[in-house]
Parts: sequence; C-alpha cells; structure tokens
Amino acid sequence: MGHDAGRVDDDSAMRWNGWGDPAKARDLPLAVRSLLPLLLGRTRRPEHAVEIEDVRLPPSALRDDDLDAFRRAVGREHVDVSVEARVRHAGGRSTPDLLRRRIATQDAPDAVVRPADHDEVTVCLEIAGRAGIAVIPFGGGTSVVGALTPERGSHRAVVSLDLRRLTGVLRLDEVSGEAVLAAGTSGPEAESALAAHGLELGHFPQSFRYATIGGFAAARSSGQNSAGNGRFDAMVTGIRVATPTGEIDLGRAPGSAAGPDLIRVFLGSEGIFGVITEVRVRVHPIPHGRVLESWSFPDFASGVEGLRRIAQQGAGPTVIRLSDEAETAVSLAQVGRIGKALAKGAGIVTVYEGDGIPERRARTRALLEATGGVSAGEGASEGWLKGRFEGPYLRDALLDAGVFCETLETATTWSNLHALRAAVEKALKGGFADAGARSYIMCHVSHIYPTGASLYFTVLAGVRSDMLATWEPIKARVNDTIIAGGGTISHHHAVGRDHAPWLEREIGETGIRILAAIKRELDPQCIMNPGAVIAVERTS
Amino acid sequence: MGHDAGRVDDDSAMRWNGWGDPAKARDLPLAVRSLLPLLLGRTRRPEHAVEIEDVRLPPSALRDDDLDAFRRAVGREHVDVSVEARVRHAGGRSTPDLLRRRIATQDAPDAVVRPADHDEVTVCLEIAGRAGIAVIPFGGGTSVVGALTPERGSHRAVVSLDLRRLTGVLRLDEVSGEAVLAAGTSGPEAESALAAHGLELGHFPQSFRYATIGGFAAARSSGQNSAGNGRFDAMVTGIRVATPTGEIDLGRAPGSAAGPDLIRVFLGSEGIFGVITEVRVRVHPIPHGRVLESWSFPDFASGVEGLRRIAQQGAGPTVIRLSDEAETAVSLAQVGRIGKALAKGAGIVTVYEGDGIPERRARTRALLEATGGVSAGEGASEGWLKGRFEGPYLRDALLDAGVFCETLETATTWSNLHALRAAVEKALKGGFADAGARSYIMCHVSHIYPTGASLYFTVLAGVRSDMLATWEPIKARVNDTIIAGGGTISHHHAVGRDHAPWLEREIGETGIRILAAIKRELDPQCIMNPGAVIAVERTS
Repeated sequence: MGHDAGRVDDDSAMRWNGWGDPAKARDLPLAVRSLLPLLLGRTRRPEHAVEIEDVRLPPSALRDDDLDAFRRAVGREHVDVSVEARVRHAGGRSTPDLLRRRIATQDAPDAVVRPADHDEVTVCLEIAGRAGIAVIPFGGGTSVVGALTPERGSHRAVVSLDLRRLTGVLRLDEVSGEAVLAAGTSGPEAESALAAHGLELGHFPQSFRYATIGGFAAARSSGQNSAGNGRFDAMVTGIRVATPTGEIDLGRAPGSAAGPDLIRVFLGSEGIFGVITEVRVRVHPIPHGRVLESWSFPDFASGVEGLRRIAQQGAGPTVIRLSDEAETAVSLAQVGRIGKALAKGAGIVTVYEGDGIPERRARTRALLEATGGVSAGEGASEGWLKGRFEGPYLRDALLDAGVFCETLETATTWSNLHALRAAVEKALKGGFADAGARSYIMCHVSHIYPTGASLYFTVLAGVRSDMLATWEPIKARVNDTIIAGGGTISHHHAVGRDHAPWLEREIGETGIRILAAIKRELDPQCIMNPGAVIAVERTS
Repeated sequence: MGHDAGRVDDDSAMRWNGWGDPAKARDLPLAVRSLLPLLLGRTRRPEHAVEIEDVRLPPSALRDDDLDAFRRAVGREHVDVSVEARVRHAGGRSTPDLLRRRIATQDAPDAVVRPADHDEVTVCLEIAGRAGIAVIPFGGGTSVVGALTPERGSHRAVVSLDLRRLTGVLRLDEVSGEAVLAAGTSGPEAESALAAHGLELGHFPQSFRYATIGGFAAARSSGQNSAGNGRFDAMVTGIRVATPTGEIDLGRAPGSAAGPDLIRVFLGSEGIFGVITEVRVRVHPIPHGRVLESWSFPDFASGVEGLRRIAQQGAGPTVIRLSDEAETAVSLAQVGRIGKALAKGAGIVTVYEGDGIPERRARTRALLEATGGVSAGEGASEGWLKGRFEGPYLRDALLDAGVFCETLETATTWSNLHALRAAVEKALKGGFADAGARSYIMCHVSHIYPTGASLYFTVLAGVRSDMLATWEPIKARVNDTIIAGGGTISHHHAVGRDHAPWLEREIGETGIRILAAIKRELDPQCIMNPGAVIAVERTS
C-alpha cells in the first residue's frame, strides 16, 4: 500500500553514476544548503563528474568463443559488451562506488550476460567454469558494500550476470500464504504482481524500488517495517540456487528438524556459492488502515529504553525508529522544513498497519510514555514515510556540492548499545578530524529485537582533499571499532568486499573455514563472485 | 511456572529401559486396558524383559592407554566402563531403542566419559582423534531417532561423551534478556536457575524433564508452547562448539547481515560436526497468569481451518493443539476418564500465558467460532497440561502389555496438510495390516506457522510377532510416503540414524554434499557421531 510500485524494467531507469531515477535528481534543497556551513564550515566544490561517454574502460578480455558460448546460452541480444552496459554494472551504490563513477578511468566487467531463467543461469555457470571466467551475479545493483566490484580473482575475465530477466510470481499458494518469486523481480514488481491477488510481501528497504528478491535473499536485507517484516531472511521459506556443481532446492515445511537449515547457508551468501534463482516467501493480505504517530524523547537514551520495552514486551507497531539528537535536528530540515530544524531531543517515528491497531497503539503508547516520550502528532512520521526511499537522492546532491556523505551500520545487544554507539561516533569523528575535516554524525535505531537493536549512522563531512582516499582509513577504523566493541560488521548492508577483511574477526577462523569448505565443494574453480564475503586466498 | 522443575543429576533418575522416573512407572490404567480390545483385538503379552544385571555386552574395545588418556583429561571417576553405565548410554528412547533394551544381548559404547566444561570436551576430542575413537555426544538421552546408537564408523571403538556435568547459567544479561547456558543443563535445571532471577526460557518439549539445552539445540527441538516459544532454534542467539579442529563461538548481534548465519549450521547438527558446549538463548520474565480453554470442532478439517487463521492472523495463544477424531476419542480415556471417551469430533487445547490475555483470547475465540468451534471449558486443556510430560510412561505400560506404540511426525504447508496426513495414515494402516496386525492411528497438530503446520502421529498396534522386525519396514514405508508427499522427514524429532537414509531425498544430493563438506573440514577423521544425519560413506 502506498509503496509507489512501478515497473522498472531497464537499466536506464537507474542513474548510471548516482541513485535512482535521473528525472528525480535534484539540487541540494535550500534548507540543507543553509545548514551545511553551520555543521561543516566551508566545503570545496569537487571537479565536475565525468559523462558516461567519456569513461575509459579496459577492452573486454573476453574472446569471441566466450561471447559466442554465452550468446548461444541466452540469445545474442542478451550479451552486451557496450561501454554503457559495462559501466552500469561496474559497481553498486556505496559512496566509494559513486566516487569511482566520477573518474574518467574505470574498471568494469568484460560483458553483461542476461539469462532468462534458472536453466539459462545453470548453462552460463557451466560456460564460465569451462572457460575460467569469474561471474558476478547482479540484481538491482544497489549493493553498498562492494559486492559488485568486477573482481576477476585468478581468472582471465569477469562477467556480470544480470538477473533482471528472471521476473515474476512463479507459483502462488494462497491457502498457505506462500509465493515463489523469480530472483530478478524488483520490489515494486513483486508487490504489484501480489497486489493483483490482494497480497503483499511487505519488505521495504531503502533500496526497494530497484533491489531484487534475489538480492534481498543474498544480502539478508533489512526492511523498514522494522518491527513487522523487518528481516527478509525471516520471510524466506524456500530457495532455489544454481551452483557451478549442482542445484539446490530447499524448503518443504514451515518448520523442520531435518538437520541444519541449509536455506540459511544461502541467505547472506552474496553470490559466492551460486546464483539464487527463485525464492519462496511468506505473503499476507494487504493490510487495511495505517496510523502514524511521532514521539519526542528528552534524549536518545530514554528513547532506547522505550524501544527495548517495546521489543521485549511485543507491543507491536509495524515500524518504529528512533533518531538521535543530531539526526532529529536535521531530519526535518532535510525534508525541507527549516523552521523545525532546531527541534530538541530524540524523535521516534511509529507506523501501525494491519489488524488490531488500537490495542497495539495503546500498548506502545503506554510503554513510550512510561519512558519519557511525548506524543508529537503525525507530522514527522508522515515526513519520514514520504521520504523513506529518497535519502540516496540527497546524497548525490551533497556529493555534487562537495560534501562527503555515507552510511554504515551495525547491531548489538541492548546492554552494549550505548557503548558501541559512542565508540563508533568517536572513531568517525576522530578519523575525519585527523584528516582535517569537520564532520556531522547522526545515528538512528531502525530494527529492534527482544535481545538488542541495530545502529545506523549517517556521516556528513566537509572533506577538502580526495574523498575516496580520505574515507578508506576512516572506514577501516570504524570497522575495527565495531568488531572490538562487540557489534556485527553489518546489520543492513552485508559483507561484500568492503567488510570481508573483518568477517574473520566476527565468525572466527573456524567460521571462515566452514564458508571456504562450502565454497570449494560447490564452486571448486572459485568463479563465483571471487573476493566477496571471504577473501580469495581462503577459498582457492 | 508449574513445569515441575527439579534437579535430575544422575543417570539413575531415568529408568534404564523405559521412560523417566522408575518410581512413576505404572501399570496400564484400567481405562486404557478396557479400550484396547475394542481398538486392537486380542494382543499377546510379550516375553518378560531382561534385568540390567543380565544384559550381555561385548567387552570394552578401549585399551588401557585410551582409558588413561581420558582419565587424565576428565578425572578418573568420570570415565566409566561399567556395564550399567554403558547400557544406560546404549541408545535413546524410541520404541525400537526400548525394545532393544528388553533383549539380553545388547551393543553399547565402550566407555562413558564425562567432561566438566568446554576445555575438557576439546581435550576429549583431541584424544579420540589421535586414537581413532568415535565420539557420541550424550545429553539427556531422550533421542527417538537413533542419534545415540553406538555406531563406530570406521573406528575401533566408540565412547559416549556424557555432557551432564556442563551445567548452569554461565552468563546472564538481564537488560538484553539473554542467558548463556552450559549445554548439559537439563530443562528443569535451566528453568530453576532462571526462576531465581524471575526469568524463564519457556521451552517445554515432552522430553523437558530430562533433555538438555545442548540437545535442544543439536536436534532443533520443538516445545509445547507451540504458538509462543515453540521452536528452540528461534530462541538461540549464540552458540559455542568444540569441534575436532577448532572452536566456534558465534552470535554477536540479534540480527546481522554478516554472511550466512552459521549458528544455523550447528542447530540441527546432532553432534556430527562437534560438541555444542554453550548456548546463548533469549529469556523473558516468568509470565503471570494462565488461562485454559478447550474447544470442540465437528471434525479435524474445520479445526485445521481455525488453526490456519490463527497462525496467519497472529491471534496469539501460547499453546494451541488440535487432536483428530481418533486422538480426541481416546485422549480422555488415556488420562483415566473413560466416561468421556466417546467424545465426538476434534478437540483443541488452548493455553494463554503472559500479557494481554483477554485481547489474545478474544481474537482467538472469534477465529475458532467462525470456523465451527464450540468452547468446551477448561477440562480437556487442564488434563493435557497435567499430563503433558507423562505420555512416554504410558508407552512403557503398553509395551509391557504387548501393545506396540510409537510416534512419528512431519510438517508441510497448509495446502498440503490433509493430503499428507491421509497418505501417512494409509501407509501406517496398510503396513500393519500387511503384517497381520490391527492398528489404531491418532494424529494431532501441535505447531502452527503462517505457512503450514506439523502433523504428529501416535500409532498403537496389536503386533503379535516380533515388534522390532515388524516395525522396521512400516517405518520405512512411512518415511517414503512423507518424502513423496512433500513433507519434511522430521519436524520434532530430528534425523539421527533412523531418518538419515531419507535426508538426501529432502535436501538433495547438493545439500548432502554441503553437510559432508562441512564435516570433512571440521571432523576430517569422521569421529563425531558417525552415521548420524548423513550416512558414513558420504563423509569419509
């Protein structure tokens, strides 16, 4: 409902070097522009970004016989070696990705191959295996952790396997409330197909308009219905995967004790074991009714206490998110209402959808009031709901204006939440200060669980030197801090290549050995997304 | 609350050749005795069971140097080669296990070794690995799928690694609602330690009084709070495992996107990768208040429809279970109330605990009434609650009286539930008929999910020939039927050795290859529980 579903059926829908619909790209809102000097001091407008026509790529390393083999598998028109296609598949949408897109000399996959279904994916993997070509599965292209970087590993070439032709609801079981979706189906496509049956999936990450069902599964996506259908992995009841050495087709029952749940081996696998081609998910009737309510808390800590009680006592809003003081102060300005930018305290957005809203709201209100919250009407929640897919557009405008902007996130237990937040903020602040840049750091909690919560940081910085070079060591310092502070290296965004060097410190050497053993078994030539999740040398 | 917690700290608490406290063993209740001839015709009283003093075991295959090494690791008094200790660790509590205990010549592990903590477990695995001795982790001894059968694999000896000395709450984080429990802690021990803090785990499988936290995790236990804390795997937030080649220590955050969730590799691993030594679980305040309500439905199908709506609309009873007509008819008689044994229709038991009972009950009532249910007061629910840990005692009395009794279970989607139930009943009925035995088959649904439910069968049969030999082909036929009918080979009981030959048909050859690859990596000598979950030849 109201998720602005719409068919997004070709690459041109996504800005090649920024976020989203090029028609929606915009200048920095006046409100933000007037805030920035207060927050960051003077910034320096960067060099003008390169046009796509002027991008210089290395020539495709694929031979004619490679291309012919792929063409026979998927059809001539679905193998693309044009500069535009290659550049459009050269990375995801992290800030470093976008900064790399602004430079004239870029790296890119050697071709884009677009299979139509599971069987064509299988054939493509066979071709790549025989020819020694790395394969990077590509869905909506919204990775922000370097999962789409065209790394060749030990191979002579790399193709981007674009899965956007695998679309649609393949099977629907309305009695059981399950749908099998093709992996390349985008969020809006899935919702619009299900809506024809009165059903919804209800998974709305910020990348919703572009990201695909297979991508949600491969990256263990977190949606914005943080207290409802927050985690995509919790909605998955089955999965089909084409690996280089055999097929996986799992998920017979809603609960099972038939050995380890191998579906979980593929959720979060980010293409390193094979290509997810179909995902069976729980669906439910489109909820009727929606109630919004914003809350103001004296500070972040009291807001966290309210969230904890809601999570542990199951009060039941569909969405709940708490912004710290810094984010609360600028969030209203960001949506263009400078007048409220001086709001004090920490704001909470709540959204209720579906059955039993009055009871759920009453329980939630009681817990929030008991922890110091004051109801603040619909305003801020409405603003959040309207703007919830728009954040990345603002980042493009900030980068254009010479302001560095990036997000990062983690999760931990309730008892460790404040210490971890403080440590991450200190690492960020200190990192930019060491680089001679002023920074402004905002944090929110968007996902709550009985035992803990996520922490999501947005950082703005007036970086006057090379942004890519400045950010790299700061990001490393933050990752060190998260691991040392007991957090997970990612709650929302996955591992990709950017977090891979830290994964061993999270899951241990034995954990890495398990992943590497599975990879050797399923992908003995290590053609699948080499370097993502686990470093290449551990798998080959 | 009311789970009858009590310390069960030595083997003698469990009847060696039957279920539970020997003091509670009883003759068949009069009510049941008078029903049996009606249901099964004449039965034949079996040979008298052997006494433990008369059991003949092969001599222990361990050498003095093996025993000395284990004694140095865990202390002399914790290595036991007595016939009694070996027999008590010779298997679990399936009906075939109990029938094997009634025969004079038995197989058993070559010793029972009792480590005190994670480090001692690690040393025991090192000793076993060096000496080429198989290791079978042993918790409460309640497996009903042959997970404790003393299989040696390719090794010259096998030890039972009894984990009951690893007990207690190792860490408690009351803010986050998490406790780290030692793996050998029994259900009652865990609840009584947590109750001192006003907390509970709330996981109550039928084996609750004996089974251990590590066993719940290793076998993906299903508790009776079927709509509340039904699945143990959903309560686990962290795990520590000693493997033959390294330690696993996982679970930093309540939600994560840091690669595949490797905790799930160990939940359901049944000791084939290593020994679970610690489990971090969600705990919650002991709920106040309990409301019981029984319901009567015209038939099983209308009851299933009520359950489905409750699962899909989240109505929220703590326990809900539906007995089919056959189980409803005898269940009252089983608890000794023959007068009500002629009840018609299908009965539902509901239990509510914790917050918001009036609202949850009102929502549940509305859905059950809309699907044909009639409230029937507290009676049957109270009877179920009182007797919920007692079922296995009745089985012993039935076996003594010459009546075969066994349970088995599966799960599937709502849309497939009736077809699968009919197919399993037909396979059971036909199997016993082919063996010339009358049978009586009962079924209940105890675990509901938005997309499907479990099916739990209890079969009574007047088997006049050898029970073990009669049951084996019937069980195989039922397993074939479950797999062909789209169900999972186990929802409650796990894989063990009894279901292992069917697992490949459930998870595919590629799925088996994944499990075997993990096992080769962590347990290259294949000492860990050889033959459980995956057949030995796939792992060595």
